[in-house]
Amino acid sequence: MKFSIAVMPGDGIGNEVVPEGLKVLKRAIEVSGEPVELDLTDYDVGASRWHESGETITDEELESLRGHDAIFFGACGDPSVPSGVLERGVILKMRFGLSHAVNLRPSKLFSGISSPLADPGKVDFVVVREGTEGSYTGMGGSVRTDTPYEVATEVSVNTWYGVERAVRDAFERAQARNKKLTYVHKHNVMVHAGHLWRRVVEKVGAEYPEVEFNYEHTDACTIFMVTDPSRYDVIVTDNLFGDILTDLAAAVTGGIGLAASGNLNVEGTAPSLFEPIHGSAPDIAGQQIADPTASILSGALMASNLGLEVVAKSIEAAVEADLADRDGTKRSTAEVGDAIAARLS
Amino acid sequence: MKFSIAVMPGDGIGNEVVPEGLKVLKRAIEVSGEPVELDLTDYDVGASRWHESGETITDEELESLRGHDAIFFGACGDPSVPSGVLERGVILKMRFGLSHAVNLRPSKLFSGISSPLADPGKVDFVVVREGTEGSYTGMGGSVRTDTPYEVATEVSVNTWYGVERAVRDAFERAQARNKKLTYVHKHNVMVHAGHLWRRVVEKVGAEYPEVEFNYEHTDACTIFMVTDPSRYDVIVTDNLFGDILTDLAAAVTGGIGLAASGNLNVEGTAPSLFEPIHGSAPDIAGQQIADPTASILSGALMASNLGLEVVAKSIEAAVEADLADRDGTKRSTAEVGDAIAARLS
Ligand SMILES: CC(C)[C@H](C(=O)O)[C@@H](O)C(=O)O
Ligand SMILES: CC(C)[C@H](C(=O)O)[C@@H](O)C(=O)O
Repeated sequence: MKFSIAVMPGDGIGNEVVPEGLKVLKRAIEVSGEPVELDLTDYDVGASRWHESGETITDEELESLRGHDAIFFGACGDPSVPSGVLERGVILKMRFGLSHAVNLRPSKLFSGISSPLADPGKVDFVVVREGTEGSYTGMGGSVRTDTPYEVATEVSVNTWYGVERAVRDAFERAQARNKKLTYVHKHNVMVHAGHLWRRVVEKVGAEYPEVEFNYEHTDACTIFMVTDPSRYDVIVTDNLFGDILTDLAAAVTGGIGLAASGNLNVEGTAPSLFEPIHGSAPDIAGQQIADPTASILSGALMASNLGLEVVAKSIEAAVEADLADRDGTKRSTAEVGDAIAARLS
Repeated sequence: MKFSIAVMPGDGIGNEVVPEGLKVLKRAIEVSGEPVELDLTDYDVGASRWHESGETITDEELESLRGHDAIFFGACGDPSVPSGVLERGVILKMRFGLSHAVNLRPSKLFSGISSPLADPGKVDFVVVREGTEGSYTGMGGSVRTDTPYEVATEVSVNTWYGVERAVRDAFERAQARNKKLTYVHKHNVMVHAGHLWRRVVEKVGAEYPEVEFNYEHTDACTIFMVTDPSRYDVIVTDNLFGDILTDLAAAVTGGIGLAASGNLNVEGTAPSLFEPIHGSAPDIAGQQIADPTASILSGALMASNLGLEVVAKSIEAAVEADLADRDGTKRSTAEVGDAIAARLS
């Protein structure tokens, strides 16, 4: 079996963590004994390219990305580039263009990680964040810009089609896990979008009689995320709420250095993309001090998505073992990658 | 001096906590020796009224509210009423109709309160949440509703006028406090609204050379709120982000049972409204087990807003003393109110 992977380290610490993610993935495939070959193709995206050529990702590259089986991404963003240019031009261009309906973000408090908030082993949920609409479409605009009479709108666009495919994915996951789904919105205020979400969840939910589902307002969910994160099994929510809640979930379960994600094309019409939740972290970039664990776990998510369950599980086990042994000794980014790779055998 | 106060207990525990808020306020005025008289007028809002008459707040009542010096509010909302009816018909009708430009939400970790996350005395910030626009306007709608082809939009509306008055209020507060302001948005994605916010903050900020201001993305801010809440002095943000961040802030600083708020008309064209952040909590209503502290602290905010600084400070001191002595003994809602009132002398 040969898998063609597009590799995009991007900016900042993306360049340091992606090699570790790949190192561990290759080693896990090797020791699994499975006849799997990885064919890696580098793509150059990010700040330097934009400064040199004004380009983010071209339409031709987006087309060429469709030829790969998956995309392994680092991070994008730099203070030298105006806010929004790389986010909209690279990250969101891929999520929208490749129809990444579900932004999947598991949150697990691994044994060995101490959280002031929760007991290890007790927190284990996944957030299914809708990935292609809501407040992320860029629709809206401004008039009388930069005058005291300016009006700027940002339009959250929600379709039955887009919400349903995320919600259905979430019910499928809940069915395969602990059969508990929480959908999160703010339908007491955002009545148009909120009631569309409510109707979709109720309709799809009727097809999964074994899954118990309940509703929480986003603001209430942030409270529970701090006071009682173990209540969750699967959370489904919109693009913007999901962005906020998953960073919070990461903070609560060991930190953003561990949080992996997958941007999934659930219909199989284009490759999915795997990336750490953390950004490019320009303040610590180039020093080999970034934690590559989130990238390594993103490699596990990618393996699982490609059907390599044994590989995925072995990476997770190696990470868990490494986390349990961390004693505060400082290790470089590559040393963490080496240590995790060394546990695979 | 006579102050005319509109009293609106509303639903659920609103009916239990508001009397305690008033009890402590009256006692604090009494012991202050100031010649202040409160003239209270009850307004009936909430679920029962809606069930009986289909009414939320009428336009006539909104007009009559303008004749008061302040509004003392409990909570609104009940599972028997469709989501959005009371929120939009009562709470948001007042915030919009009475031009409550700033939703002020102080977060303080009182000594005596233990938080798993932060040291007492180290966390003391206020969130200035814009109160009259953003995603709260109700603009938007749906077509092909309840079909697989439904599209629902929710329009976040942002004006220079509306953003500026909140931002200016925040800079004024920062100037009077520790001269540090953090503005929070998501301008890497929501470019239209986000860059309006950025421009307003930069323009108004130039008038406050002593105040240092910085920017955080909303998702990053939720992480810092958990890992490093003491970094904040004044936060200014939009209506929806403010809703989420202040509930999170409450969770981090002793819980939603302590969080007070003021909906401020900063131009003096209508009365301001004071309310606990917590809602009607139907699950614990009618049992006299709700913590009235947030309502009592809302009374202090109201006193301060009416110019009664001594009264406000004495209520805060009494609450702080009560909190320091809490040992887990269960007390009824009224007993907590009595205990705090008894500390005033
Ligand atoms: C960088 C940004 C566009 C992105 C988002 O908001 O989705 C990031 O915060 C994330 O969560 O992946
Ligand atoms: C009840 C609801 C309309 C309200 C809001 O979203 O503003 C509440 O959550 C709050 O924060 O006061």
